[in-house]
Amino acid sequence: MMTATDETNADSAIPTRRHFLRDGALVSGSVLLSGLAGTQAVRGATADNLPPNVPEWTKTPGEPTGSPLYGMPSPFEKDVVRNISKTLPQYLSAASRTPLQDLDGIITPNGLFYERHHAGVPTIDPAQHRLMVHGLVDRSLIFTMDDLRRFPSESRIHFIECSGNPGYKKPYGRTASDLVGLVSCAEWTGVSLKLVLQEAGLQPGARWVVAEGADAAALTRSIPIEKCLEDAMLVYSQNGERLRPQQGYPLRLLLPGFEGNMSVKWLRRLHVTAEPAYSREETSKYTDLMPDGTAREFTFYMEAKSIITRPSGSQLVAEGFHEISGLAWSGRGRIMRVEVSVDDGRSWKDAQLQEPVLTRALTRFRFPWHWDGQPVVIQSRAIDETGYVQPTLAELLAVRGDNSFYHNNAIWPWRISALGEVSNALA
Amino acid sequence: MMTATDETNADSAIPTRRHFLRDGALVSGSVLLSGLAGTQAVRGATADNLPPNVPEWTKTPGEPTGSPLYGMPSPFEKDVVRNISKTLPQYLSAASRTPLQDLDGIITPNGLFYERHHAGVPTIDPAQHRLMVHGLVDRSLIFTMDDLRRFPSESRIHFIECSGNPGYKKPYGRTASDLVGLVSCAEWTGVSLKLVLQEAGLQPGARWVVAEGADAAALTRSIPIEKCLEDAMLVYSQNGERLRPQQGYPLRLLLPGFEGNMSVKWLRRLHVTAEPAYSREETSKYTDLMPDGTAREFTFYMEAKSIITRPSGSQLVAEGFHEISGLAWSGRGRIMRVEVSVDDGRSWKDAQLQEPVLTRALTRFRFPWHWDGQPVVIQSRAIDETGYVQPTLAELLAVRGDNSFYHNNAIWPWRISALGEVSNALA
Repeated sequence: MMTATDETNADSAIPTRRHFLRDGALVSGSVLLSGLAGTQAVRGATADNLPPNVPEWTKTPGEPTGSPLYGMPSPFEKDVVRNISKTLPQYLSAASRTPLQDLDGIITPNGLFYERHHAGVPTIDPAQHRLMVHGLVDRSLIFTMDDLRRFPSESRIHFIECSGNPGYKKPYGRTASDLVGLVSCAEWTGVSLKLVLQEAGLQPGARWVVAEGADAAALTRSIPIEKCLEDAMLVYSQNGERLRPQQGYPLRLLLPGFEGNMSVKWLRRLHVTAEPAYSREETSKYTDLMPDGTAREFTFYMEAKSIITRPSGSQLVAEGFHEISGLAWSGRGRIMRVEVSVDDGRSWKDAQLQEPVLTRALTRFRFPWHWDGQPVVIQSRAIDETGYVQPTLAELLAVRGDNSFYHNNAIWPWRISALGEVSNALA
Repeated sequence: MMTATDETNADSAIPTRRHFLRDGALVSGSVLLSGLAGTQAVRGATADNLPPNVPEWTKTPGEPTGSPLYGMPSPFEKDVVRNISKTLPQYLSAASRTPLQDLDGIITPNGLFYERHHAGVPTIDPAQHRLMVHGLVDRSLIFTMDDLRRFPSESRIHFIECSGNPGYKKPYGRTASDLVGLVSCAEWTGVSLKLVLQEAGLQPGARWVVAEGADAAALTRSIPIEKCLEDAMLVYSQNGERLRPQQGYPLRLLLPGFEGNMSVKWLRRLHVTAEPAYSREETSKYTDLMPDGTAREFTFYMEAKSIITRPSGSQLVAEGFHEISGLAWSGRGRIMRVEVSVDDGRSWKDAQLQEPVLTRALTRFRFPWHWDGQPVVIQSRAIDETGYVQPTLAELLAVRGDNSFYHNNAIWPWRISALGEVSNALA
């Protein structure tokens, strides 16, 4: 990644040995980090020197193994939790956001997966749970969880994103989490919905599947049959273990790339029909009033989007090398490219995409950057495999008007002040 | 995956519509599952029927959003925890195993990642933690966690496996977890070790890096410089969030494919040397006495291995279709093929590998199987991209003799009785 000859490349954003070392020295001299034993402090140390101050935790035995038997984060990470809005009118229909600026990679740990519930989180006994498949089928069927576990299984890594992530109304928030924390990504395991529908036998005229949750909202959404037969799954596991209650335990419909509320949690019924249900969640909610007076409805796909998660809503400690890191995703398929601008949108360069780049999954991008200490605006834009380019907020508003709320996938710029403060440039 | 014409394929292990339906009926009629409203019960139901017995949890609002802010599994999954040996002499040097038979996919959730500690789990304040790099380098360096976070990062999915997984001594255990639960897999994020060593500047003669942990064992292992410059990482995050204390918070060395104890946790020192340290963990431990009186030492690579995790140590509820599912991995690279035998090793067929198949990561394999109710022995064997084939236990013992303990990667068969009881065939 670096060679000795890199050292002459002083103007490049690609870091060199001298860059890193100079940055290290700067960091260690900064008043922003107190008590730092930086690189300068140990110049000339002999090979036999130990790090100074052997810490207390090396002098005494630690905590026992298997304590607890289900592990938890370090107490020093106690502030890395889901980010819950304090302004919603009541807790049952509410959301909590993934703390994106604190996370790395593409997998969201289950404890930090975002939530959006319409009537709270039911506590379901899996031995009592049933899934009914009926309507335009040859055989109505009721499955237990054990029945579903006997089907052939598959595992896939996909994101789920709420369609109101963010809405179009200010204030948009301070961090990447405040802004677009209603997206998370996990490895899901379950059964192909196609397989289950074939077991029931689809009749001619079957065009929609109406999915109903077992929560107190009985959340109901209509899914086009094409999606049900493409890549929809009935999932029971998430990142290896069984679904968390907040993600639909014991059974969730997963519609990769579609707006999150359609991946119905606590799934209890699939009604195969000729027409959609026009349920509350597809008439009074999850539609958008357009400038011409019509409504956008059944806005299934989450279009390509990206966000710089680090830095976001934070503080750059020093001039010099910084890695810009973020997430990109598209409900239409794979991310093909992410471009980053560090000059308020005047020029764009390709970011590096972390492999594996998976369809309808979060993709981690990274961009090496040398901050010269001047005020600047940084931002990213995603291009997916269909060629779709993530739009600006102005472009979106020009088409959607003032009455839209859902499917805001705008480019989001961060403003960095001369003091290193990173703030929302559109707030 | 299935078409109407599949129905004639009665002798194939590939499930068909009639197979599944017949199995469903069998399950619903079984006394092993009480109170099951199976497929037969709803034959002839009209399209407007609801599932019977609308559950209590649909009638009342659920738990609030963000409760807790760091989510936990359902109370109904309380028994899915790490599996801790009760026979170890004292808790500080002990292990807990991942409950492999309860998990799906390839990602191990952080709360269930296996543990192996030599002096308990230290509770480390990341603001106080330091990493020293010294020895045969141009510049001795001490890094804070903030320093390390400023380096370019990368994320990769890799397994870690203890070299004694299992040992060669009976009893071997009842489940896949008892047997080989000292392996787990996660998405790791951190810094390339090569980058950090280049920052310090390797001197001529630098051949080993001696890594030391900050636990009370000061666990110390010597790493060949070639591995340090190939794919070694200094990791600070696991499955998105910061490392758990049990996995080395705040900093762990990660050596993909090498025996787990070399991926030193709570990493505080990297001493670049000409010779290995011959530490306690590479002389009195983690070596094997061979039949000719010599010792195998520095047995870095975890060779190719696989295990059927479902069914394992469990009970088949009925004849008919069952998916055999398991995990395969190799420290040498990618899994190329997994073969399954359902006739006590007389014949072998290719299992399906779940994509993406990643280097030095767990790979999920699946094999559709129709159990006829007769006693049978099932097993899997892995072949990696180097062409290496997982050996039998007898083959391993013939080479290693009676005094070995580590690096048992034998094929492990499960015996299924006429009653459906699945037990360890080599116990």
